[in-house]
Amino acid sequence: MCEANVYIDERDGKGEVLYLENVDVIRSEDGKLFIKNLFGEQKFFDGQIKEISLIKHRIVLTRK
Amino acid sequence: MCEANVYIDERDGKGEVLYLENVDVIRSEDGKLFIKNLFGEQKFFDGQIKEISLIKHRIVLTRK
Repeated sequence: MCEANVYIDERDGKGEVLYLENVDVIRSEDGKLFIKNLFGEQKFFDGQIKEISLIKHRIVLTRK
Repeated sequence: MCEANVYIDERDGKGEVLYLENVDVIRSEDGKLFIKNLFGEQKFFDGQIKEISLIKHRIVLTRK
C-alpha cells in the first residue's frame, strides 16, 4: 500500500514526533490540515506541510 | 513504488493540469515548493499543497 506516517517537527529539541500512522489523505481546509488514515482516523492540525518523501513513507508537518 | 503525480488546480475552468509525474519529494523552501521526481527532475512551484491522496497517487497544488 502507499500510505505515509505523519510527524510533527516540534522545533524545541524533541525533534520529529509521530502524529498519525498510515495516512492516506491530507487536505487544506480553512487554514488547517485535515488528515485521514487508512483506518478512518481523522485529525485536524493547525500547521503546514514541511516535507513529503513518498519513498520513505514520511510526511513532516510544522505548527503555525 | 510509492510515488504520486502532481497536478495544478488552475481554478480558471481548465481544472487540474498535470505538472510532474512520479514525484517522490515535496519540500517547503523559502515560501515555495521544491518538487523532485524519481528521475531526478526538479521544479520550484510558487504555491501550496491543496490535497494529497496517497492511495490515488495524487497531489494537487494551487497557485499563490
